[in-house]
Amino acid sequence: MLMKADHALPALEWLRGYSRESLINDSLAALVVTIMLIPQSLAYALLAGLPAEMGLYASILPLIAYALFGSSRTLSVGPVAVASLMTASAVGAVASQGAVDYASAATLLALLGGLMLIAMGLLKFGFVSHFLSHPVVSGFITASAIIIALGQLGTLLGVTLTGATLPSLGHDLSTQLLNAHGLTVAVGAGSVGFLLLARYRLSDWLSVIGLRGRPAELIIRSAPVLVMAVLIPLSAAMSFEAAGVSLIGHIPSGLPAFSAPHISWPLIQELALPAFLIALIGFIESVSVGKTLGTKRRQRIDPDQELIGLGAANTAAAISGGFPVTGGFSRSVVNFDAGAETQMASVLAALGIALAAVFLTPMLYFLPKAVLAATIVVAVISLIDFKTITLARRYRAADFWAIVITITVTLLAGVELGVLAGVGSSVGLHLYHTSRPHFAVVGQMPGSEHYRNVDRHDVVTDPHILSMRIDETLYFANAAYLEDTVFAQAALREDLAHVILMCPAVNAIDLSALEALEEINTRLKENDVALHLSEVKGPVMDALQRSDFLSHLSGEVFLSHHGAVTALRATGTADPAQT
Amino acid sequence: MLMKADHALPALEWLRGYSRESLINDSLAALVVTIMLIPQSLAYALLAGLPAEMGLYASILPLIAYALFGSSRTLSVGPVAVASLMTASAVGAVASQGAVDYASAATLLALLGGLMLIAMGLLKFGFVSHFLSHPVVSGFITASAIIIALGQLGTLLGVTLTGATLPSLGHDLSTQLLNAHGLTVAVGAGSVGFLLLARYRLSDWLSVIGLRGRPAELIIRSAPVLVMAVLIPLSAAMSFEAAGVSLIGHIPSGLPAFSAPHISWPLIQELALPAFLIALIGFIESVSVGKTLGTKRRQRIDPDQELIGLGAANTAAAISGGFPVTGGFSRSVVNFDAGAETQMASVLAALGIALAAVFLTPMLYFLPKAVLAATIVVAVISLIDFKTITLARRYRAADFWAIVITITVTLLAGVELGVLAGVGSSVGLHLYHTSRPHFAVVGQMPGSEHYRNVDRHDVVTDPHILSMRIDETLYFANAAYLEDTVFAQAALREDLAHVILMCPAVNAIDLSALEALEEINTRLKENDVALHLSEVKGPVMDALQRSDFLSHLSGEVFLSHHGAVTALRATGTADPAQT
Repeated sequence: MLMKADHALPALEWLRGYSRESLINDSLAALVVTIMLIPQSLAYALLAGLPAEMGLYASILPLIAYALFGSSRTLSVGPVAVASLMTASAVGAVASQGAVDYASAATLLALLGGLMLIAMGLLKFGFVSHFLSHPVVSGFITASAIIIALGQLGTLLGVTLTGATLPSLGHDLSTQLLNAHGLTVAVGAGSVGFLLLARYRLSDWLSVIGLRGRPAELIIRSAPVLVMAVLIPLSAAMSFEAAGVSLIGHIPSGLPAFSAPHISWPLIQELALPAFLIALIGFIESVSVGKTLGTKRRQRIDPDQELIGLGAANTAAAISGGFPVTGGFSRSVVNFDAGAETQMASVLAALGIALAAVFLTPMLYFLPKAVLAATIVVAVISLIDFKTITLARRYRAADFWAIVITITVTLLAGVELGVLAGVGSSVGLHLYHTSRPHFAVVGQMPGSEHYRNVDRHDVVTDPHILSMRIDETLYFANAAYLEDTVFAQAALREDLAHVILMCPAVNAIDLSALEALEEINTRLKENDVALHLSEVKGPVMDALQRSDFLSHLSGEVFLSHHGAVTALRATGTADPAQT
Repeated sequence: MLMKADHALPALEWLRGYSRESLINDSLAALVVTIMLIPQSLAYALLAGLPAEMGLYASILPLIAYALFGSSRTLSVGPVAVASLMTASAVGAVASQGAVDYASAATLLALLGGLMLIAMGLLKFGFVSHFLSHPVVSGFITASAIIIALGQLGTLLGVTLTGATLPSLGHDLSTQLLNAHGLTVAVGAGSVGFLLLARYRLSDWLSVIGLRGRPAELIIRSAPVLVMAVLIPLSAAMSFEAAGVSLIGHIPSGLPAFSAPHISWPLIQELALPAFLIALIGFIESVSVGKTLGTKRRQRIDPDQELIGLGAANTAAAISGGFPVTGGFSRSVVNFDAGAETQMASVLAALGIALAAVFLTPMLYFLPKAVLAATIVVAVISLIDFKTITLARRYRAADFWAIVITITVTLLAGVELGVLAGVGSSVGLHLYHTSRPHFAVVGQMPGSEHYRNVDRHDVVTDPHILSMRIDETLYFANAAYLEDTVFAQAALREDLAHVILMCPAVNAIDLSALEALEEINTRLKENDVALHLSEVKGPVMDALQRSDFLSHLSGEVFLSHHGAVTALRATGTADPAQT
């Protein structure tokens, strides 16, 4: 049912017995992905506030590093929208303070994130990512997509927006709107319109002329390249530059030089948290994409190996003039749909980008930046996910509020605080719920040995016995609540002789809760009420036996609740006639 | 069994029908407490880095405010050791930066803490304190006591120690040790020795001459005053000041003037977190003392009213030139043991301190500071609690590590980080445990309807049915683990037709876990295995019914696990002969 990846170098697994047929499929996928990656790489570099060529550099060596160390066969890594926005936010904060070079700070960010991911992978710390719940990640990506799309409005309008939150972007937009540059707006709006049509309508039109499946998909996915192919000559011929349209301009030709990023200790301290958050979000996105694709072909993703693969990719980005990369959703889906069988497709795509970096860059001089902005806007629209919000609202208030808090904080206070607020709110809401656990007074389901809530079922109870089921692990956050609840229920009953705490849902009892139980035991004993436990699980019983509690306990510990009730009725304290 | 405090003004409850006998008892307790409070107040003001008279001011109005609004009959509030150390740390950090007046920052700290406590009380947010587990609080107080005792060594040796952490205190001590001032050492060591003898041996000696009970207790508790009564005249007569002994010096006579502390927004921002932590630790300490004493006389402490009482006390401290106060353990025990029946004892003690502030201060001029340091050292020694560490070590690793982390961080990095690390580590360890929940494959206990762990009990199982009990609330942190665990167990079984997840310990299923269940259902169905749930609790079932999961579920939801197994065996997929 499941496959285990080769741990040292997962690439060995698919390289063994690599076939001619696989090479043909991988080559075709590589071609499609290369065509798609060229505009994306340039666009996300600009989104991160970096020179366009860094986007190309981040799409060469990182792909090869992931191909060697990653556990997914079809994941395609490179610059992605959300990580680029987070890079802009992190580097902007340190570069605005002084003399730090913007580009080298972005490279350092990739290095820090890469090393953190590798360390987490080696330590098997992938579980850390589980503390970002799905609603929080979904909300975060939705909010980021909104910020990215709004931020690109500046480039589409030919004005400068510097904000990275909703209020500051709104302020910038309102003051700059009248400065919009007509020709830039025309280029931008035209590109957005064409790309939207390509994405949402083109497949229908192509199917009319008989084009379906892979060829149609290839045409649709190359729409951004088509826009470039039209607008670059147009821009050159009509002197867009002289007319005031912002162009990509000069991009150095050639491959990136290997170099270590400039390292300074104070800078590392400032970038450590953002690097960790970018790495974590990138990891979660990658694993999620990898799992989705892996399930379709019954290929397993190993999260710890994935940490090492992404760590290697980011480290490779850092030493070859790139910036933080991760597994992207749309490019991986394209890669998969185009028929990629192994990571050879990514290696070939890296070659394709390298060729582009050497031969294509002079042609990019005349490319209007608004075209790249249009690519970004159309790409991030698909990241906006209102479905999860609706689902959460219907299903569970805590999940809904976690999304709302994540989106609100991300929009109003930026990406880093957004992620942290998301984790904080989901963990906080979980803890709050467990600090006020559900409890039920239970009785016997007639004719069975099963005990259920007296408020929900028609059950048999005994006036001398209070059977309470506490539905939570007992720990410091609910120890005081436990005390209050038991005493409040006990106080309601006149002829009480026994309290039985039914513990099937008690998965642990920590020291604070143990002290609460001691207190309950003592106070009940003072009132001539015996305390018993039932259905205590093995690991919990093991721990209790290491404490003195069982020797203080006024009552007994019973294996089953029915056994407890039967035994206590038989002692004669309870009157069987009343049951 | 339980008593409910009068909510608006708890004092009304005991003022009604206040008797002559109560007044006599309260007056005696007030006398004992006043004698004890005078040296303590002065000492803790110096520990907080403040002028001695602020200690007296913090022991007048706050006592009256608590008497009116607090819910404990015998709690005695005022400056305490740990809160004073935290005050020194917080105010030291802001005052060292520039022009902020040290004393007014301490007063602002009391105001912020007081207002926060009142707000929390009105909002019924007392539960926030539950996130500080007992082991963490115990470890924090132990580490604080060690820092306080070491810090007082400076005063006892007549040298200046500025550190507030173990490494910096160690460094200061090693460089200053040779500068120790002989006469100061003699006064300090003599005082410490006398106070230790009084605390640990005097009751034995007094019982030899027939003195026992309250009179003996009164003598023992007035030992610090006795030391003062001997050393003040000695210091004056022998010109200690000229010999280089550091004295208390001039203390202004009279009552504190009412005034609002100087308020500045940047200062509030810097002091907000420390104020919150001081208030929270103080609240926890107070409630713990109040509960201990309340239990002895069957008097109930209302935590939310307690927040308001302590908030009122701190606000009163702030407007009368004091600094953060809370309910102290030793003074409350003295008050209780001396026979206090109501908060009238505290009102009378406040009068006593007020008289001391007016008439006694000139006499304090010659008091060596080393005497007060000796009082502090002997007082905080009793706060060091190794018993909880030993207990935690035996009982549960997570509790033990929470204490170790709290103590280590408090000693090495100071009180604020210590509290935060304590909360962080206990919450983190709890989440880590719940992210890798215990699960059990269960079978039927022969002759019963009860199902238990196959590894712990001799139970009956069926090769076509996998019965798994997941021992945890299902939420984002363990959703991936749930998937992995179920698939791993299912993969071990050849002839599997049904998986039943037994859910008595599942107290909630969040959206992330619901998606994991959907995934489990889908993948099992692809392998012709049906997924069933059993013993799903009411609130969890309510939530599932609001989602689409139940319509996708390949199997059924059964009320009892026994019912599920019986029904599935009867379908014929399973062979009853094998069971």
